[in-house]
Amino acid sequence: MTSATNSSVSDLFQLLRDGEPRTRAQLASATGLSRSTIGLHVDTLLESGLVTPIADAASTGGRPSARIALKPDARLIAAADLGATHVTLAITDLVGKTLSETFTPLEIALGPTNALDWITNGITELLTQISRDPCDLAAIGIGLPGPVEHDTGRPSNPPIMPGWDEFDVPHYVQRTFNVPVLVDNDVNIMALGERAANWPDANNLIFLKVATGIGAGIISSGVLQRGDRGIAGDVGHIRVARGAGVICRCGNEGCLEAIAGGPAIAAHLVTEGSSADSLAGVFALVRSGDLAAILAVRQAGKDIGEVLNMCVSIVNPSVIVIGGSMAEVSEHLIAGIREVVYARSQPLATQNLTIAPSRTGPEAAILGASLMAADFVMSPKNINALNTRGNALA
Amino acid sequence: MTSATNSSVSDLFQLLRDGEPRTRAQLASATGLSRSTIGLHVDTLLESGLVTPIADAASTGGRPSARIALKPDARLIAAADLGATHVTLAITDLVGKTLSETFTPLEIALGPTNALDWITNGITELLTQISRDPCDLAAIGIGLPGPVEHDTGRPSNPPIMPGWDEFDVPHYVQRTFNVPVLVDNDVNIMALGERAANWPDANNLIFLKVATGIGAGIISSGVLQRGDRGIAGDVGHIRVARGAGVICRCGNEGCLEAIAGGPAIAAHLVTEGSSADSLAGVFALVRSGDLAAILAVRQAGKDIGEVLNMCVSIVNPSVIVIGGSMAEVSEHLIAGIREVVYARSQPLATQNLTIAPSRTGPEAAILGASLMAADFVMSPKNINALNTRGNALA
Repeated sequence: MTSATNSSVSDLFQLLRDGEPRTRAQLASATGLSRSTIGLHVDTLLESGLVTPIADAASTGGRPSARIALKPDARLIAAADLGATHVTLAITDLVGKTLSETFTPLEIALGPTNALDWITNGITELLTQISRDPCDLAAIGIGLPGPVEHDTGRPSNPPIMPGWDEFDVPHYVQRTFNVPVLVDNDVNIMALGERAANWPDANNLIFLKVATGIGAGIISSGVLQRGDRGIAGDVGHIRVARGAGVICRCGNEGCLEAIAGGPAIAAHLVTEGSSADSLAGVFALVRSGDLAAILAVRQAGKDIGEVLNMCVSIVNPSVIVIGGSMAEVSEHLIAGIREVVYARSQPLATQNLTIAPSRTGPEAAILGASLMAADFVMSPKNINALNTRGNALA
Repeated sequence: MTSATNSSVSDLFQLLRDGEPRTRAQLASATGLSRSTIGLHVDTLLESGLVTPIADAASTGGRPSARIALKPDARLIAAADLGATHVTLAITDLVGKTLSETFTPLEIALGPTNALDWITNGITELLTQISRDPCDLAAIGIGLPGPVEHDTGRPSNPPIMPGWDEFDVPHYVQRTFNVPVLVDNDVNIMALGERAANWPDANNLIFLKVATGIGAGIISSGVLQRGDRGIAGDVGHIRVARGAGVICRCGNEGCLEAIAGGPAIAAHLVTEGSSADSLAGVFALVRSGDLAAILAVRQAGKDIGEVLNMCVSIVNPSVIVIGGSMAEVSEHLIAGIREVVYARSQPLATQNLTIAPSRTGPEAAILGASLMAADFVMSPKNINALNTRGNALA
């Protein structure tokens, strides 16, 4: 099989990645390839195991099924979401559906080998649980709570991750599983997951995580934007008006996260005589209808709105999703955000703009990590490598 | 010729778009196509006229040239840059080289038919000047001084362009030249031109135009980002600290362009007793070493720096280029910008960041408009249509 032929097999496969079953005639008309070429390529894909015949409801038996489609569980993806104090790990199929999942409390500050050993052991266990072979694994996607140089998979000066700076995450994981390992920061993978789950048609979307820190995952022209050094969307350290005189943990004055992050809201309530000295305490007060707590969250929403205004002017998104632990009180947070964004942004930028709470929650991260890895191995550039491994399945 | 074959002819052509001459052997090894397939495809491309044999320095004659390359002037592009009070029009080749150019003062406020008729007449005249046929025209690229919905080529509520709102620019131009007509705002095409001319390796670049208005063209992941409604980069209406109490022409308070645009600087100097009541007057004062004028420009740079800080956090570019008429005094403007950006942005975002004046000047717009149109017609999706027309040249 020449590379030229491989290239049209890949074209055919890209078409089938949406999961829709298609007849050979439909494939021929969509690609312009001749029926005989389609026949040969479909045979190649069926042999690889990545594609499967679909039982036809109207079939009268005897004839081979007229339709074929992607076989999502032909190969598997491992997806991990590491937070400051936890790891979630899942095995998914090629379209991000979770087949098996596990969770553990784990301090990221204990360093990379501790966390990554837990992940590689976990992958082996999860595969065993679902009776699948390690060779079925096609790729691994990992989200980390700090800046990551995506091209190399190395964290860059992550503030809450001692020992991780410049650590070669893919290389370490590949000592156990010799597959592509894709690494990104948690906000970026949450943006990918949230979009795939709830806003598949939004090509310009901002996912804002509001928790202890504040950060954004930005999708423009349908592509996650990482910027030159992988730190695009680092909006928590933009200066806001109300921040004057407040010093942030980054050393600058007036950063958004120093006045609107979870700990800042809790600290503010304590100075007002409230008992809420933690984020959980703030949530409880808000749910109990405590006016000071509600106003504090709404004020944080307004501060966040000030920065989202800038994001709206610069990125011009159609959707802004608010996620992260503060999404627990998203009703009041988003009220404050909307108040500022709709009052201040240019009409053309807001007339088609939706601001909504995350509907996917923590699963957004696992879904996003899975899709990041699956997208890499099924891309036109890499699909032939996957195909070769896939042949072992046939 | 089947579509499948067309697809590999297009692959071959995409490879040759960089202008590098290649032998058939080099093409075979780069594409994986067989020597005989390459031979057939090269014949197709030579017939289309888009590709030409390159005279080989070491050739001893008799044998056909071993190398082929893109023939940049096989087809032509018309590129127009419309400002508030002028139009520049050029005929370029397929890689943006100007073959013929003309300029006229023209009030954009007189409406679209006035300006577009001048452009279509101008294209005909320029083609005659260089003895080329209207059929040689492959596409037209147009930059306008206001927001444009790029997909339809219609201006959207452009503030200084009465009569242009929602006007179907491509349709009107196509009554004379039935070729693709691509329209965008001037800042976006300047970003494309500046990058192509001076920063071809910068995949994350912000072009900031500072003139009467202030706006940015944003290139992320190598792609110009237009956002959901074509108004990404509308940074002139972001609120800045020093703008408190100043009402912008957009109706909001504190917009960047209301205090750091050219007219704002001139007006400020007049209140200080200066004679500079125009931008030209400001430039003259700055060049004469007038301290108040220098400080006013530097202060505008600091205000702009405040907004560029946000752009740096959100987009994470490696290059910021300052263009527009205020680039006349870019030395002092950029001093102010650097002062704020390097003091305030996160170290990881600035350690690899270049802030530089535009090196291409007004030609950036013509080059960008040309490349926008050429890129469209030579893309894998559209090249076959161009090819068909191109056959007439052979």
